[in-house]
Amino acid sequence: MKRLKEIKGGVTAAEGFLASSIFAGIKASNKGREDMALVASSVPAVAAGVFTTNRVKAAPVRVSRAHLRSPHACAVLLNSGNANACTGPCGIAAAKELAGVTASALHCGVGRVLVCSTGRIGVQLPTAKMAERIPELVARLSAKGGNAAAQAIMTSDSFAKEFALEISTPAGKFRLGGMAKGAGMINPNMATMLCVVTTDAKISKGALQNALHAAGERTFNRITVDGDMSTNDTVLALANGASGVVVKNGTSEYTLFLEALNEVCLKLAHMIVEDGEGVSKFVTVQVHGASSFQAARRVAEAVANSTLVKCAWAGNDPNWGRILDAVGYCGVRIREEMVDIYYDGVVAVRNGTAAQTPKEKLVTAVTPKKFTVTIDLHQGKSAYTVYTTDLTEKFVELNLSE
Amino acid sequence: MKRLKEIKGGVTAAEGFLASSIFAGIKASNKGREDMALVASSVPAVAAGVFTTNRVKAAPVRVSRAHLRSPHACAVLLNSGNANACTGPCGIAAAKELAGVTASALHCGVGRVLVCSTGRIGVQLPTAKMAERIPELVARLSAKGGNAAAQAIMTSDSFAKEFALEISTPAGKFRLGGMAKGAGMINPNMATMLCVVTTDAKISKGALQNALHAAGERTFNRITVDGDMSTNDTVLALANGASGVVVKNGTSEYTLFLEALNEVCLKLAHMIVEDGEGVSKFVTVQVHGASSFQAARRVAEAVANSTLVKCAWAGNDPNWGRILDAVGYCGVRIREEMVDIYYDGVVAVRNGTAAQTPKEKLVTAVTPKKFTVTIDLHQGKSAYTVYTTDLTEKFVELNLSE
Repeated sequence: MKRLKEIKGGVTAAEGFLASSIFAGIKASNKGREDMALVASSVPAVAAGVFTTNRVKAAPVRVSRAHLRSPHACAVLLNSGNANACTGPCGIAAAKELAGVTASALHCGVGRVLVCSTGRIGVQLPTAKMAERIPELVARLSAKGGNAAAQAIMTSDSFAKEFALEISTPAGKFRLGGMAKGAGMINPNMATMLCVVTTDAKISKGALQNALHAAGERTFNRITVDGDMSTNDTVLALANGASGVVVKNGTSEYTLFLEALNEVCLKLAHMIVEDGEGVSKFVTVQVHGASSFQAARRVAEAVANSTLVKCAWAGNDPNWGRILDAVGYCGVRIREEMVDIYYDGVVAVRNGTAAQTPKEKLVTAVTPKKFTVTIDLHQGKSAYTVYTTDLTEKFVELNLSE
Repeated sequence: MKRLKEIKGGVTAAEGFLASSIFAGIKASNKGREDMALVASSVPAVAAGVFTTNRVKAAPVRVSRAHLRSPHACAVLLNSGNANACTGPCGIAAAKELAGVTASALHCGVGRVLVCSTGRIGVQLPTAKMAERIPELVARLSAKGGNAAAQAIMTSDSFAKEFALEISTPAGKFRLGGMAKGAGMINPNMATMLCVVTTDAKISKGALQNALHAAGERTFNRITVDGDMSTNDTVLALANGASGVVVKNGTSEYTLFLEALNEVCLKLAHMIVEDGEGVSKFVTVQVHGASSFQAARRVAEAVANSTLVKCAWAGNDPNWGRILDAVGYCGVRIREEMVDIYYDGVVAVRNGTAAQTPKEKLVTAVTPKKFTVTIDLHQGKSAYTVYTTDLTEKFVELNLSE
């Protein structure tokens, strides 16, 4: 019997979660597109969060981190069009005020409302305009509102990102689903990436935080599009216990919970990479045989972020020299003469030099929209995987100005 | 009286240095363009070198490092069209063989010939074809051969890079000049960048090595185009004493020598950045007020290598949010609320948030081909400067395949 089953929906797939969205006109150029979203639990939930490690942290990141100290959460208020980052004390006040207005409308304490923003940096939020829309946003909350909420948080995304699972355990079924937005500024450590995961499992706040941290490390922190890391990255998880299924450390329910959380996060992370600005390729970079986990990670990230490697992929060029170059400069003490490199299983480099594979075979391997680059350092047993993209002229064109 | 005076020429501007170039057909697509160059001293010179810190080192880097152990050097053999990198033991043998053929033709020991290669990675050198051309290359050596040699080492460069100075000291005049090639894969720690500097000053091997190391740190290691670091970067200096001017540690001649070496290296480094593949802007990134030299350097390099920051410059977008974002993620413990950012002296960010400068003024500041970004962290007294470029669609187009 299959324990994890994909089901329809995203952030409202779990019992007792509602969502809504509305147009507030936060960014002048967002003509008529909804730009505020709300996710709420009909009963108080426990909540956990992981955030950008950028030293420059947006106001909503600071406010949500503080509010996560409350034992429970009721809702997450999100907006696109403005990141409320680099906005100083006014920005903090704005984030708190919007959380407060939402809390009043939901009849809960302000510390139970988390906030997320994404969009332009350095511009103050139009707080009054947004606050005015909150009562209507709350009135619209519905178990069918998940997809519209996922659309309202999009910035340069081309599609709404949602995924949900139903998990069958000996103790019964529970659901876990989520929504995310990504596209620009995606890098390990989660650049402008917002994600809200909800579940109706009954789990403690501490266990949820541990599970979310572990899942984030294996999924969102392994994706990169442009090598930049945003000031706003946030992954929040809310668990309201509505299914009655208790998930406790050390039980088979907990194992299934971890597996489901990991799968939902991975699916959403992959959607973010596939939808990266101006991206034409989805490339998995696997490093094997490293002397340590850190070494494997540095090598994988250097290759996945190399401008020249990514340009070559855009051009269907199996240019392994640029890959080996990046392996060499990443700071890990690799031994050039032991490195093997494969494109989708086709050997390109053996012992640090060209393998005798005909170039046409290598070109064929890097031409599809998805392929894997495997780098074996032959120095130890550690491995790491990063999901990345090519670098296209379209990407640059899209990023010439905001 | 001006102590340092620009004079015509490059690698043969100093007394007793000769150069030549020839077509060998190393790369099939280089139709008729000369691709081998030789720089030789008519009397044995002392030599010094600084090389790529990439763990993957091209064969000529390994061979030149070994040959620098000889007390003297006679010549440098260079080629474009093939990097002789990732070519294993055959590549080493090829580099040694070519040095040997050159040494025979010059009647000196093989250890007195240094070698440099630039071009495609992972392809064996056409050694026989190249060896065949060496006697003619030696026969062509001339004091007027500098410019043609500078042209023969070009790859995607659009112009030959040469610069020379005449230095007046109390003890007499000496000359210091050089040639370089750059363009693709330029990054701190000197990606595919070759440079040969010659001088007729009389200086010890140890003092020359120290001076070259210091000058490299302040010039070639501070330039970046694409963030990748090559396997072949080499800066060589030869001093043959032909001027009779003795340069000893602690004398005013030594101070002038350092100044001149720094200026020649800086001029050549700037030419490399200006000629970066598909580059439309030359940007100086200055970091002030850092708590340490390393912190200043990390911040400057993160900004200078940020894909998104560089795209914004290409679009004349004074997007300081992306700069502050890079400052935040570089790993230095900055304090967001203390950071100021200026474009060419116009304040864009004050205390971590938007200064009240009209956007048009900022756009005007980032529109010229050359401008400076100044970041003041207000945490200490350390500073660092990096020279970088924008990131254009043309860059990506040029790098889709080699």
